Amino acid sequence: MANRHVFHGTGVSAGIACGPAVLVAPAVGVDLHEPACTDPEADGQRVRAAFDDVAASLLARAENAPEASPILEATATLAKDRALAKAVDKELAAGTGVTAAVHAAVEVYAQKLRDLGGYMAQRVTDLYDIRDRTIARLRDLPEPGVPPLRRPSVLVAHDLAPAEAALLDPVMVLGLVTEIGGPTSHTAILAAQLGVPMIVQVAGITELLIDATPITLDPTTDTVILAPTSDEVAELRDREERRAAALADSAGPGSTKDGHGVKLLANIGTAADVASAAAMDIEGTGLFRTEFLFLDRAEAPSVEEQAAAYTEVLRAFGSRRVVVRTLDAGADKPLAFADLGPEDNPALGRRGIRLTQVREDLLCVQLTALAAAHAAVPEADLWVMAPMVAEVGEVEWFVDKAKKAGLPRAGIMVETPAAAICAGELLGVAEFASIGTNDLAQYTMAADRLAGSELLTPWQPAVLALMRATCRGANGTPVGVCGEAGGDPLLALVLVGLGVTSLSMAPSKIPAVRAALRMHDLEACKEMARRALAARTADDARAAALAAAAPDLRSLL
Amino acid sequence: MANRHVFHGTGVSAGIACGPAVLVAPAVGVDLHEPACTDPEADGQRVRAAFDDVAASLLARAENAPEASPILEATATLAKDRALAKAVDKELAAGTGVTAAVHAAVEVYAQKLRDLGGYMAQRVTDLYDIRDRTIARLRDLPEPGVPPLRRPSVLVAHDLAPAEAALLDPVMVLGLVTEIGGPTSHTAILAAQLGVPMIVQVAGITELLIDATPITLDPTTDTVILAPTSDEVAELRDREERRAAALADSAGPGSTKDGHGVKLLANIGTAADVASAAAMDIEGTGLFRTEFLFLDRAEAPSVEEQAAAYTEVLRAFGSRRVVVRTLDAGADKPLAFADLGPEDNPALGRRGIRLTQVREDLLCVQLTALAAAHAAVPEADLWVMAPMVAEVGEVEWFVDKAKKAGLPRAGIMVETPAAAICAGELLGVAEFASIGTNDLAQYTMAADRLAGSELLTPWQPAVLALMRATCRGANGTPVGVCGEAGGDPLLALVLVGLGVTSLSMAPSKIPAVRAALRMHDLEACKEMARRALAARTADDARAAALAAAAPDLRSLL
Repeated sequence: MANRHVFHGTGVSAGIACGPAVLVAPAVGVDLHEPACTDPEADGQRVRAAFDDVAASLLARAENAPEASPILEATATLAKDRALAKAVDKELAAGTGVTAAVHAAVEVYAQKLRDLGGYMAQRVTDLYDIRDRTIARLRDLPEPGVPPLRRPSVLVAHDLAPAEAALLDPVMVLGLVTEIGGPTSHTAILAAQLGVPMIVQVAGITELLIDATPITLDPTTDTVILAPTSDEVAELRDREERRAAALADSAGPGSTKDGHGVKLLANIGTAADVASAAAMDIEGTGLFRTEFLFLDRAEAPSVEEQAAAYTEVLRAFGSRRVVVRTLDAGADKPLAFADLGPEDNPALGRRGIRLTQVREDLLCVQLTALAAAHAAVPEADLWVMAPMVAEVGEVEWFVDKAKKAGLPRAGIMVETPAAAICAGELLGVAEFASIGTNDLAQYTMAADRLAGSELLTPWQPAVLALMRATCRGANGTPVGVCGEAGGDPLLALVLVGLGVTSLSMAPSKIPAVRAALRMHDLEACKEMARRALAARTADDARAAALAAAAPDLRSLL
Repeated sequence: MANRHVFHGTGVSAGIACGPAVLVAPAVGVDLHEPACTDPEADGQRVRAAFDDVAASLLARAENAPEASPILEATATLAKDRALAKAVDKELAAGTGVTAAVHAAVEVYAQKLRDLGGYMAQRVTDLYDIRDRTIARLRDLPEPGVPPLRRPSVLVAHDLAPAEAALLDPVMVLGLVTEIGGPTSHTAILAAQLGVPMIVQVAGITELLIDATPITLDPTTDTVILAPTSDEVAELRDREERRAAALADSAGPGSTKDGHGVKLLANIGTAADVASAAAMDIEGTGLFRTEFLFLDRAEAPSVEEQAAAYTEVLRAFGSRRVVVRTLDAGADKPLAFADLGPEDNPALGRRGIRLTQVREDLLCVQLTALAAAHAAVPEADLWVMAPMVAEVGEVEWFVDKAKKAGLPRAGIMVETPAAAICAGELLGVAEFASIGTNDLAQYTMAADRLAGSELLTPWQPAVLALMRATCRGANGTPVGVCGEAGGDPLLALVLVGLGVTSLSMAPSKIPAVRAALRMHDLEACKEMARRALAARTADDARAAALAAAAPDLRSLL
């Protein structure tokens, strides 16, 4: 096997994959052999048609990916910019070939944006995306990005945007490998949510890859093998079988080997996910995000509309637990009807409860609608919580409003370090807490979760310490975890050892976590937590927990 | 006194002011009585000249305010945009009057930026600034902003940009009053650094103000009085005298009443401040920022140039302590020669040690230069520390480099929650710590320090808890404070009670802090710290500390 090559990266979504590799097309450059322009009008029309096609394809993608639509729509607008087309005409009139004309005209436009400096300069990336797609069309080559797949394949890319990942079909995509990207990037989270195995930071793989080469990926060992030997494939299949066996008897409520109950819940982000999650063997939803009701709308949804949506959720889950998070919007997830303006650091801005403190009407309507839904489904176990809480005054304000609306149980997200440190005070007022590990790690390490810093892992001793502080401060009040951490079977054991009473995660992760819990007594979980907390670094913490875990656990990782 | 009016706000810079009020001009609108345009060419020239004048005045301001110059220069570029001038021509050709033409043309341009959305939309603010300045010039009215002062005055403004505050002459500006703004805004910090009393959040004052009305401000009581009675002025003068008396015997090294030493040091941000600070009765500098050597340059300064600058600092301070912070740059303070690209959340980005881990060369040159300076001034007490540390691996990396360069003492800034929580590990490697209270509060509360959130005060129980954690983890290793908190006489006592061993602040604040320390035993400081830590909210924490303080302390606040 001349082509055989072993790569190492960072596993970010569990499972094993084995299949033909498909390279996600990189951007192609100018056609170096194209003829000079002799008919500027005809070529100008060709280029305009290509720009229009690109804009149309971006808008089509925007429709399928509501999350990314504002960005895709803005990019589409840029593709139809008349100044850009005119700049191309000018190049063509001078005899430049079509792809070179597009390249040069974009460069002129990009330079203008750069000259304006600061934030304007950031649009240059979008402009280059348009350039690359337009040039690919003009050259009759595939547009950069994920190609249509004809058989189940493993996608290999330099990088994969969340907008691209959101459109992947988990039936056709066996696995994902990227050269860059981080464990808490949105793409990694989406992959886990889709149940697609993924390894990131596999440097140099796209250079060696030939389409259709067999490839395996094993996130447990962080290994990608190009053109694996039959032994390697057999070993992987064997591991897959052991994993399947461990998961086989994973059913029913979550609990440790000695019967300590830990509720296993699903994170749900859209109405479409409700039915599929409710049909699963899970104990409810530990994070029902409500933003999808508010996004891409000119006005906030009415009480009636929201009540109908919430009623549907409560009906689907019957008497199982439903933890609803109230609106978590802000400058990073702006709403047309509640935009407080741009911010230099949206992650540190007026998001979550801070936005609803300014726009109290939004929260009141939401709480009224939740109470109406609860009245319609009285058997529901409805819990409501506020995001981005940082001090006790905010908790009092929220709990008071929830109680006045007639809601049975009001709690808070713990995602700021302040909330974790002051958990004793805050959980004297709130009736439960749910730790958002991604944001908590982001603020504790002061590292943007969207930028993929290596600092960002919930295994950081500082983050573990804040989770312990939350559980200690809770003093018997339920504390859940609804960040990505809860879906890692090893970390889930540590969290239970710290005192966490429920774990909410992508539904596809629940079977492995349930199986992991069944392998360990509560005391073993506590010992793992103690060892992890005593570690110096995040890597040490994970290694210490793993060393104390049951040997069987490895088949689940 | 028909005009007499008492306002309440939030004192952010100590001292007392009494003098004539000067309103910082607000933006004027379109001239509603202007004639229609009959000579588009002549009017077009007039508008172009006004745009040019505005651009020139912005560039002139940029020269005097290096900190704000990238923003001012970008705005000036926008004022000279040809598309903007052409849009004005179009309005004039249709017969619109000059100021209305500017207004309309800017609106069209602004809408285009808004349509582009996202970051582009943020430039609209700059565009409106240009519009307001240009219209004021066309109407022969003063440009919005601080007017030239003819006698010492109290400035009253709706808001004051840091760029404007940086240009104020503390001899002519007796005090500052603004209707909005927060205690940790850059403007508030600058005011404190200049020793100019300031009260923010004084709602509605500009509406009632008539220029030259006498006004008093008293940050201790958060009170502004317009047209005060003679009794009120007399009481204020009396308080001023008591303050002066309390400060009169404030000299020598810092220590509590019972002789527990606490080093009182100055924060220094420019070469120009070195001589004046070194001439003062202080024990050194606890935060010598080195960014000024790197800003606004095409290339990094050489070893020789840096060594010369550091040698000058060490010479100025003789054997007194000099704590140098290595380069703290990033996307929010970008360097032409070390720009890692724009970031969505620069405050959570690759700044401080994260930048120098990517650009190791920058740190190596700086450490080599510091070692050379130390060799030239061997009696110097040189300490070197790294900013934005979050985990022990970074500390090992930095301390190793500093030691290999031959530097005597290597430490860290504690400004991320992670560093405070893991202080035990980190200060097992680093030889000292310095708490940056502004950033620590920003990350702990997850609230942007530049956006003036009310959450941001070092009195937050969560922030106090992290400072205690730092002191406990230090286990005898020196822990200083170099954020704004150290300059608040009441909070300084709490910090000493927590175990902080040095306080670094704006030099103008040292006398009051020294006097406050001399009024209290160490045990009293500890009791104040215990009470503050036990409080539920930031306001409660401050009130609890104040209730336990010596009564005399009030004259210093």
